[in-house]
Amino acid sequence: MGNADYECPHPVAIPPTKPFFKALGSSLKETFFPDDPFRQFKNQSVSRKIVLGLQYFVPILEWAPRYTLEFLKADVIAGITIASLAVPQGISYANLANLPPILGLYSSFVPPLVYAMLGSSRDLAVGTVAVGSLLISSMLAKEVNPFENTKLYVQLALTATFFAGLFQASLGLLRLGFVVDFLSHATIVGFMSGAATVVCLQQLKGILGLVHFTHETDLMSVIHSVVSQSHESKKKKAFFWINAMAPLTSVILGSLLVFLTHAEQHGVQVIGHLKKGLNPSSITELAFGSPYLTTAVKTGIITGVIGLAEGVAVGRSFATFKNYHIDGNKEMIAFGMMNIAGSCTSCYLTAGPFSRTAVNFNAGCKTAVSNIVMATAVMFTLLFLTPLFHYTPLVVLSSIIIVAMLGLIDYEAAIHLWKIDKLDFLVCIGAYAGVVFASVEVGLVIAVTISVLRVLLFIARPRTIVLGRINNSMIYRSIDQYPDANNVPGVLILHIDSPIYFANANYLRERISRWIYDEEDRLKSCGQTSLHYVILDISSVGSIDTSGISMLEEMKKNVDRKGMKLVLANPRSEVIKKLEKSKFIEAIGQEWIYLTVGEAVAACNFVMHTCKSNAGEMEQNRQDDNV
Amino acid sequence: MGNADYECPHPVAIPPTKPFFKALGSSLKETFFPDDPFRQFKNQSVSRKIVLGLQYFVPILEWAPRYTLEFLKADVIAGITIASLAVPQGISYANLANLPPILGLYSSFVPPLVYAMLGSSRDLAVGTVAVGSLLISSMLAKEVNPFENTKLYVQLALTATFFAGLFQASLGLLRLGFVVDFLSHATIVGFMSGAATVVCLQQLKGILGLVHFTHETDLMSVIHSVVSQSHESKKKKAFFWINAMAPLTSVILGSLLVFLTHAEQHGVQVIGHLKKGLNPSSITELAFGSPYLTTAVKTGIITGVIGLAEGVAVGRSFATFKNYHIDGNKEMIAFGMMNIAGSCTSCYLTAGPFSRTAVNFNAGCKTAVSNIVMATAVMFTLLFLTPLFHYTPLVVLSSIIIVAMLGLIDYEAAIHLWKIDKLDFLVCIGAYAGVVFASVEVGLVIAVTISVLRVLLFIARPRTIVLGRINNSMIYRSIDQYPDANNVPGVLILHIDSPIYFANANYLRERISRWIYDEEDRLKSCGQTSLHYVILDISSVGSIDTSGISMLEEMKKNVDRKGMKLVLANPRSEVIKKLEKSKFIEAIGQEWIYLTVGEAVAACNFVMHTCKSNAGEMEQNRQDDNV
Repeated sequence: MGNADYECPHPVAIPPTKPFFKALGSSLKETFFPDDPFRQFKNQSVSRKIVLGLQYFVPILEWAPRYTLEFLKADVIAGITIASLAVPQGISYANLANLPPILGLYSSFVPPLVYAMLGSSRDLAVGTVAVGSLLISSMLAKEVNPFENTKLYVQLALTATFFAGLFQASLGLLRLGFVVDFLSHATIVGFMSGAATVVCLQQLKGILGLVHFTHETDLMSVIHSVVSQSHESKKKKAFFWINAMAPLTSVILGSLLVFLTHAEQHGVQVIGHLKKGLNPSSITELAFGSPYLTTAVKTGIITGVIGLAEGVAVGRSFATFKNYHIDGNKEMIAFGMMNIAGSCTSCYLTAGPFSRTAVNFNAGCKTAVSNIVMATAVMFTLLFLTPLFHYTPLVVLSSIIIVAMLGLIDYEAAIHLWKIDKLDFLVCIGAYAGVVFASVEVGLVIAVTISVLRVLLFIARPRTIVLGRINNSMIYRSIDQYPDANNVPGVLILHIDSPIYFANANYLRERISRWIYDEEDRLKSCGQTSLHYVILDISSVGSIDTSGISMLEEMKKNVDRKGMKLVLANPRSEVIKKLEKSKFIEAIGQEWIYLTVGEAVAACNFVMHTCKSNAGEMEQNRQDDNV
Repeated sequence: MGNADYECPHPVAIPPTKPFFKALGSSLKETFFPDDPFRQFKNQSVSRKIVLGLQYFVPILEWAPRYTLEFLKADVIAGITIASLAVPQGISYANLANLPPILGLYSSFVPPLVYAMLGSSRDLAVGTVAVGSLLISSMLAKEVNPFENTKLYVQLALTATFFAGLFQASLGLLRLGFVVDFLSHATIVGFMSGAATVVCLQQLKGILGLVHFTHETDLMSVIHSVVSQSHESKKKKAFFWINAMAPLTSVILGSLLVFLTHAEQHGVQVIGHLKKGLNPSSITELAFGSPYLTTAVKTGIITGVIGLAEGVAVGRSFATFKNYHIDGNKEMIAFGMMNIAGSCTSCYLTAGPFSRTAVNFNAGCKTAVSNIVMATAVMFTLLFLTPLFHYTPLVVLSSIIIVAMLGLIDYEAAIHLWKIDKLDFLVCIGAYAGVVFASVEVGLVIAVTISVLRVLLFIARPRTIVLGRINNSMIYRSIDQYPDANNVPGVLILHIDSPIYFANANYLRERISRWIYDEEDRLKSCGQTSLHYVILDISSVGSIDTSGISMLEEMKKNVDRKGMKLVLANPRSEVIKKLEKSKFIEAIGQEWIYLTVGEAVAACNFVMHTCKSNAGEMEQNRQDDNV
């Protein structure tokens, strides 16, 4: 059955092979520079290029000249608001990380300044994060007891922060941001909720221990009101001031209560003495020679990735609200530099917590100057106000943590995931259960493994779809999706849904054979014309490897032996180049490769028709004569 | 810009959501039973079903009734031929695995019988394999010295064989054959060549030690001739008898030479005494309580996977020659049972070596009966002929191994890989270098890692393609591949090449933004009409997750803000269901989703045209009026 007489309306192009290094270069560019960050550098003078380069790496140079007094007013209000959150949260989270409370305050001073210069988000409020603090305490406390060997523990925490920063900055500089992409939204939701659950359970212990004190029940009701308020404020933005001010208010009320009733002498634990003064240098504290260095590095990498994943996602979502662009790789460099600088100035891991950023956004911040204002307010606190925290009861810190944590348990997001995508829900639940029942690392590993397996499964078990003709058209679509699409008599049209790789070549061979068997059975049972053509629509086959080519060669042999003909529709640039190099095009015949399924069917019908009228061999039951 | 007046020619179908468990069931069926092995069981009586079931699990029941005398004649010739290869190779490979030589003979007796009953290949010749032997010696000898603690070493080898069998059978029963698929052809080529190189270098040591003996030079020339002959015979099939008989001839000649010259008294090592008799039971030797159990399990799993990958690939390629079907999962069960049975009868790991199978095929085998004939011949050898091997010099065994190994170094395949697919070549070289310079495990890990990274990279960095209209048609194809395809003024058409997942959602957002920027720049520099529509052709988007949906939502916002309109073309069943559930369809408007790119462009042009004639806002430079 030749089709020499049939004139192909639109030949399939086989683009010339690019030279190896050119192809490599362009594919590396697509992989690492999808956003083409140096686009604006084109056709510029050298001095302009230097200015642009500086602005690229230090974004404050870009926006500072346009800064107005109006922006300043908004930023000051937002900055003071987040500072009122940063001070109590800083102390609380440091407590959660088993670190001295003062480190929490230090961490709200230097890193925000660094971020304000290097970061590209206008809304992100920098500070310590609950999950990071939990991770540090759970990973380091396994090795070193924070209460018996505080000095070493603090050194390890600082070293871990240094490596977190180094890792983050390297990811950004090497443009490997996609590593962070593998922590999907579902993973983060599950992971955060799990961590929040663990933290809440830990803190509850502390709170329940205090219920015996009669004069603390008031405090409990305060907490209760804070909790209920914060939940309402999630719904109504107008209440966000309550949310923003509640922690500071609780701290003030709690401290006053303790101070007035001298509860600290009756067993209520208080923060105690906090040293006045700004961050001391901690370069000498970085324990690179410690026997626990590997633990510090591991902790640094995990906390660094988690911090990035949360921070970049938070920055991105607020940027979308305000319609500006966040450069993921630049953010990573900013996060990295801020943690490296932090680790040298007695700060532990900082990132961009969602809660504080939301408050910043709602308070009307305009630029990263709100971070500078916050840092200044914290500086003021460090210099003059630390003695005031002497009487702050730890239970207030616990309640602050719990309130922040309850906001992180995002069951609504989990329900949403279940409705839209069951596998994402599984990832989320896996992360949650792993964190709650085993450990943070286990939760992370479970979630990433399920996510990666899903991607691999998509490739390993690609869908094959039977196409049929949509009524009154030359369009061929899935018969499953369009049930009134018609089969073409004598022709089986299969669509392959993924690149053909080693991982799916065997599967596709089996599955396609089964489609052919099934179609033959079906035709036999209907007494219809037998199968003459198998058209493979490979529009969606973006790539093929040598195993895939072998598979096609075998399939062609099998189809030939059954007396049928294999036809290809719409091979893509990448695929047809490889098919040509491996001589498969020669084997199948260039004339049996078509640009569209419609044209392939037309050619098949033409040949079947010609044969029929010449030799009268074929049944007279064709239904589509309009081709 | 509404398109309420425009009548959509072919609406996009949103198929109803299947109930969760039905969807899960059908997707599990597609994943684990792509070949639908129980198809033939449909509409059969119970007794027939039992017969079919037995035939399914024990294929010999299926083909034995059709067995003819003619087949027997061919199988006897083939069986004796491969036996003449099996005896010397068995002894040699056992030597390579540092196991007593007699185990090599035992391993050519029981496993072929088991395979003949359960296997679905007609050509596969079962026996010990060089790479498996090498793996056993390299992995076990690290823990136990085979010369000082022979008994324990043998026990561990048998235990490893048991676990290899258990693992293989479980993969088959659980239909997890795709695990083996992840060892691509390129991996196997590189891995085998690397292993062969290592084995050759090991054996050369032995051979070079003998060059001092004058009367051994003859032997060297014999070996040389064997080598050169075997290489020729790879080209010419007629010479395969030389290839097939060479090992036995060398053994006979070598043994005679040693016997006549009494060379064993001058330092030439010989095999020595071999016990007469059939396989003794070794169930009690399986060392499940040994402290080295984990090593044995690890060795078993790795050798089992490698054995399967080679064996199934060999079986498949010969099946394609003869046009019959190999059921991968059934093969795995057969391999597994044969190794479990083997481990209980003093046999170590067996698989389907390529060299022996090729000889079997060339000698004209018809069915697995040739394996039974071979086993019978080996049984005869075990019962009566073992004393004859007393004087066989080890150097002959080394040379037999080297000859077999040289055939495995498939540099031509590597060149082919380089020509067709650079990444496959990298996988191959990675496996080779890993095996040669580090260890077999390292080689395997390198190759599998590169292969999996490639798959992940395809998903993480999908291509986005700009489409243009092919002249005189409604067909839209890649402008890169078809350089004379035309842009549609005012419309940017982008094709996305992979499922939209968490791993690529960020990348796609950045890349698509860049396409839009670039197109705007291009239009501005040409002074052409500005961009009004962005059409996303999502034909190739087989799946989407919640991160992907968020990405589309953000993209829609961005496009809206620029005053453009986002249009979707050809969403697939899976995707449109999820888009509907997440209300994205509502947001974008059902009327802006089209079945083909052509129809989407027509609708855009219709609206632009209407606006233009009504308000005269738009430039009069449309090129395509034939829509």
